[in-house]
Amino acid sequence: MSETTLEKPVIEGFAKDLVAQIRAEDTHGSWDRKSDMELLEPFIVDKEKRKLIPIIGDPDPDTLWRLELYYGALCLAIEKRCGKMVSPMMKMSHEGFGRMVLICGRLVVLSKSLRDVHRFGFLSMEKLNAEAEKVITSAIAMIERFPEVADY
Amino acid sequence: MSETTLEKPVIEGFAKDLVAQIRAEDTHGSWDRKSDMELLEPFIVDKEKRKLIPIIGDPDPDTLWRLELYYGALCLAIEKRCGKMVSPMMKMSHEGFGRMVLICGRLVVLSKSLRDVHRFGFLSMEKLNAEAEKVITSAIAMIERFPEVADY
Repeated sequence: MSETTLEKPVIEGFAKDLVAQIRAEDTHGSWDRKSDMELLEPFIVDKEKRKLIPIIGDPDPDTLWRLELYYGALCLAIEKRCGKMVSPMMKMSHEGFGRMVLICGRLVVLSKSLRDVHRFGFLSMEKLNAEAEKVITSAIAMIERFPEVADY
Repeated sequence: MSETTLEKPVIEGFAKDLVAQIRAEDTHGSWDRKSDMELLEPFIVDKEKRKLIPIIGDPDPDTLWRLELYYGALCLAIEKRCGKMVSPMMKMSHEGFGRMVLICGRLVVLSKSLRDVHRFGFLSMEKLNAEAEKVITSAIAMIERFPEVADY
């Protein structure tokens, strides 16, 4: 939205994978002129922004789509590190509550209860990367612990 | 719909669990006067009935609901036999294609690709019971093979 050049900040780590995932879904090239930073911006929800998002009713489709992008990118990042395919499954029950699992073979490498999905986002880019790194590391640890189930 | 007394045929095995599951969702007692057979009837889709269901567009909500009832009842049946909680997760992608997984702890005890969900059903009550028994047996075998993952 802003006209300032936001290209400058270096986007590293998982955030880079996430941008790649977002661009991969842009089959019509509508975002070609958007900077990486602009694409990531909706994922960054600081305290001020958070307060402004009501948690009434069901989360809007854009938020759900971002949630799917985030977990989809996590799957790819895990896959990149261990060479095994990982796929996400989400179940939204009502009013922003739900569950997300990432599955590798017959192993659930991540199981997360979702709540207040309306406010899905990260305080900062650093927090996004740190959180993703935590998930990836723990998923890899699960796969290494139960290789037979992951390869089933 | 029919006025004949269909109460007579004995409903056994998994079909009985399925009826219990259907009745459990009937919080307003609207089906109190329906026989078990009447409640199961939509799950029985023989060749003639099958042909009449178009597989165009997305499956109708009633069909999806029956799918969830069926897998929900399977989870309970597995739970009854092994004492461990099992929960279903479904992902419908488009036009009746999707995936269903039943999860116990961190173990995927059943993973099934769904297709032509519009026509979800079984040729007969016997087929329904036989198919369910197969799923339950194989789920229990998975749990017994990987107890540590199921109890994770």
